[in-house]
Amino acid sequence: MGLRRSLQEIVEKVGGGVGALIMGYDGIPIEEFILESPFDMQLMAVEYVNVMKEVKRSIGVLKTGELEEILISTELSRIIIRSICEDYFIILTLNGDGNYGKGRYLLKREIPGLRDELI
Amino acid sequence: MGLRRSLQEIVEKVGGGVGALIMGYDGIPIEEFILESPFDMQLMAVEYVNVMKEVKRSIGVLKTGELEEILISTELSRIIIRSICEDYFIILTLNGDGNYGKGRYLLKREIPGLRDELI
Repeated sequence: MGLRRSLQEIVEKVGGGVGALIMGYDGIPIEEFILESPFDMQLMAVEYVNVMKEVKRSIGVLKTGELEEILISTELSRIIIRSICEDYFIILTLNGDGNYGKGRYLLKREIPGLRDELI
Repeated sequence: MGLRRSLQEIVEKVGGGVGALIMGYDGIPIEEFILESPFDMQLMAVEYVNVMKEVKRSIGVLKTGELEEILISTELSRIIIRSICEDYFIILTLNGDGNYGKGRYLLKREIPGLRDELI
C-alpha cells in the first residue's frame, strides 16, 4: 500500500505516536510520516543513524547475532528502532507516555511488508 | 546488601539472565555478577560504554530529557541498560529467550538501592 501509507498507519494506530521514518544506514532518509512533533525529527533521524552504526559495530565485535531491535526511552520520548534489512531501518518515535508494547508489535508485524516494498 | 548481592539477585531472578555489570561512563567497571556466559562480558561492557556515550550525546542534541533506559535485542542476546545516576549505569544481559519485561521491572525497582550504595 505504499511506504508512506504504512508509516502513517503505524503512527496513527500505536497510541502516543509522533512520527516514523525509514532510513538507510548511509544516513539517507527514504520515507517519513510525521504528526505535529515536539521534536526535530530530521535531526533525530541523523542522530539515530550514528547510534545505529555504533550498535551495529558493537554487535559485530560481540558476535551476538543480527541486530533486531533497539528501544531508547528518555523523560520525554520513547524510540523504537528496528532493522528492515541490511541497508535500511525504521525509527518510530512516541511521546513519553506512548504505548511501547503496541509499537514493538506493529513494527514487527509491518517489517515484512516494508521489506518487500524496499527491495 | 552490597552491590554484588544486588546484581546476583537480579541475574538469578530475571529468567534467562547471563550477567549484570555496573559501569562508569568513563569505562571503569564498578561491580559485576556473571553466570557461565556464552558472551565475553568484559568486552561487552567496554562496547556498551561506547554505545551509551553515543546515545547520551544524541539525547543531549535532541533535548528529549534525561536518558532512562536502552534495550538492544539481537538474535542471541537481550540487553537492558539503565542509568543509575549521572556517572554510572547498569547493564543486564539475558540470553535470546530472556524475560525482557521482568528484567525492566527488576532494574527499575533496584535502581534507587544501587544509587544509595554508589553515591
